[in-house]
Amino acid sequence: MKYIDAVDYKLELGRLESSSFGQLLERYSSSQKIIIVDENTHENCLPFLITTFDELSKAEVIFLPAGEENKSIEIAFHVWEALTEYQISRSDLIINLGGGLITDMGGFIASCYKRGLDFIHLPTSLLGMVDASIGGKTGVNLGHFKNQIGVFSNPIAVFIDPVFLSTLPENELYSGFAEMLKHGFITSDNLLVRIIEQMKNKEEFSIDLLFDCIQVKNEVVKNDPFEKGERKILNFGHTIGHVIEGYFMDSLQISHGHSVAIGMVMESFLSMKVGKLNRDKYAEIEELLTSIYPLPKLTDVGIQKMTAMLINDKKNKEGKILCCLLNEIGDCTYDNAIEEKIFLETFMHFKNLQINMN
Amino acid sequence: MKYIDAVDYKLELGRLESSSFGQLLERYSSSQKIIIVDENTHENCLPFLITTFDELSKAEVIFLPAGEENKSIEIAFHVWEALTEYQISRSDLIINLGGGLITDMGGFIASCYKRGLDFIHLPTSLLGMVDASIGGKTGVNLGHFKNQIGVFSNPIAVFIDPVFLSTLPENELYSGFAEMLKHGFITSDNLLVRIIEQMKNKEEFSIDLLFDCIQVKNEVVKNDPFEKGERKILNFGHTIGHVIEGYFMDSLQISHGHSVAIGMVMESFLSMKVGKLNRDKYAEIEELLTSIYPLPKLTDVGIQKMTAMLINDKKNKEGKILCCLLNEIGDCTYDNAIEEKIFLETFMHFKNLQINMN
Repeated sequence: MKYIDAVDYKLELGRLESSSFGQLLERYSSSQKIIIVDENTHENCLPFLITTFDELSKAEVIFLPAGEENKSIEIAFHVWEALTEYQISRSDLIINLGGGLITDMGGFIASCYKRGLDFIHLPTSLLGMVDASIGGKTGVNLGHFKNQIGVFSNPIAVFIDPVFLSTLPENELYSGFAEMLKHGFITSDNLLVRIIEQMKNKEEFSIDLLFDCIQVKNEVVKNDPFEKGERKILNFGHTIGHVIEGYFMDSLQISHGHSVAIGMVMESFLSMKVGKLNRDKYAEIEELLTSIYPLPKLTDVGIQKMTAMLINDKKNKEGKILCCLLNEIGDCTYDNAIEEKIFLETFMHFKNLQINMN
Repeated sequence: MKYIDAVDYKLELGRLESSSFGQLLERYSSSQKIIIVDENTHENCLPFLITTFDELSKAEVIFLPAGEENKSIEIAFHVWEALTEYQISRSDLIINLGGGLITDMGGFIASCYKRGLDFIHLPTSLLGMVDASIGGKTGVNLGHFKNQIGVFSNPIAVFIDPVFLSTLPENELYSGFAEMLKHGFITSDNLLVRIIEQMKNKEEFSIDLLFDCIQVKNEVVKNDPFEKGERKILNFGHTIGHVIEGYFMDSLQISHGHSVAIGMVMESFLSMKVGKLNRDKYAEIEELLTSIYPLPKLTDVGIQKMTAMLINDKKNKEGKILCCLLNEIGDCTYDNAIEEKIFLETFMHFKNLQINMN
């Protein structure tokens, strides 16, 4: 069992049966327990959970529909109604069993119900383990705007059990790898190399690598929980990534990690364009990322819409589009104010690149 | 100008022009400002505000429909959409100009939009000034369940200008007086007497009395911001009051303060019934409150529904109904676990009382 020093909650990595999860449940022995799941975790993870921990045998199970389009206020509303029907009180406990969608949304639902219920995250996806479940960001989308509505709110504990990774479809695994690659890009060339190695051997997951990736996220959010400064570095690839994910939500449904990977290529291109990243390094990044995460087809209309969406990114300030830029691998800066026009040119570059490739 | 020592925000009582409101606005000179109003404050308070403070001349105004039934997630959703359309970013500022509905709901809207925008409360109702705007509770109703969805979140400042009281209709004033009376009931017989005196002279408002009532609320919430213990004392009259307000929402629309006053009579009766409050003191409280705040007509069906609603009060724990009880005026306890049956009997007592009076 590996213990990670989070601010005000438990963060443990290893087999759930060996963690302090069971003990924690005993503290809530007279409370009602609610487990929030999705289709995948309902089938693959829930049976293990309720048969292993007696305290959960009478838990109520709430099923959230899969898909980014269901990460909405409307669905949260229905869950709040269900919690009211189950007569859930402030002293009860919510357990979020799933990927980033479940932990983001379940955290938001718990944080707003009766002004805040205790909740535990049991991330089951790679993305959830290395990113979404850590750092207290919760939220839902507003139309195509990703996580537009949410709060900062920490769970009482996060238990990360890599056993759940075996239940993941391949595209989910790659979605998580993208956030891991981001941890490498922003902090360490060496970490990046180790992640690329891991991606070649998906059967055997290195606990040490997981631990190091979780540590990157945990350290950054500990120093800046409300994203006033340093935490913004974690948004590398996300300014464009969010827009890609939102724009294609109704059609291609590009996963979060895949969208971020595309965002990282494009923001690396931006970094080169404004004279920060050198041309060879950029080419290396483009080669690495586009070989794993293909670009969607860009159209003039789409580019215009995406550029308009950028203006409404949460990270913007006073009308400028703020963006992370790379100086080199392992050296990233945040709060770079970039003109709308440069983004438009970047999108056009990638559109032309596709045309030339075909 | 009177300054009140709140935890992490400014709390000032006196003329807005003499307060630090103007200076604070200057700090946001490059931010967009949004003023949230209702029908009453749009007509009576907004013109003064935007003509007095130049910084607000270009503010966007968002109009919330009046009425407890509009304190809903659906309306919050529409405001979030409007903020998105106005391209409001995390560094912008929301100003809530209105009574408890506006500050509760505006605070919630601001706290969840992009995971939290700065907001200022300018309470314009008596209830808002002595209660709702202080202490960081924000929220909206879920159907008939009052403030079922919300978060604890403090504004950056609250400015209380009694000049706005002159714009209030009489029933709104009495709604505020009820919460002031509650401050008397739970802390001091002497304060209660002063409030009763003030109620006889509504033309001239005592700033000292306002200050003392604000202090009661402020001190309690400072010691226990998240209502883990002591703060629960402020719920005197609210266990039953919330149910009265919720149950009659679609018909009589009893104001929050009026509902709380009825709740205080009934919870005083409960206090007597379980042997805490003596009979004469109870009779005095009943006489005082029912002469100002008449009881609605209770029916058997209504009583059954209200008893069922009590089970879902936010303050409950492990299936028991938790309630404040009075030992005497100025001496109140919280977390008293009361059986459902006792509430039912209390409602029946008041139903029979009405029948005997007619």
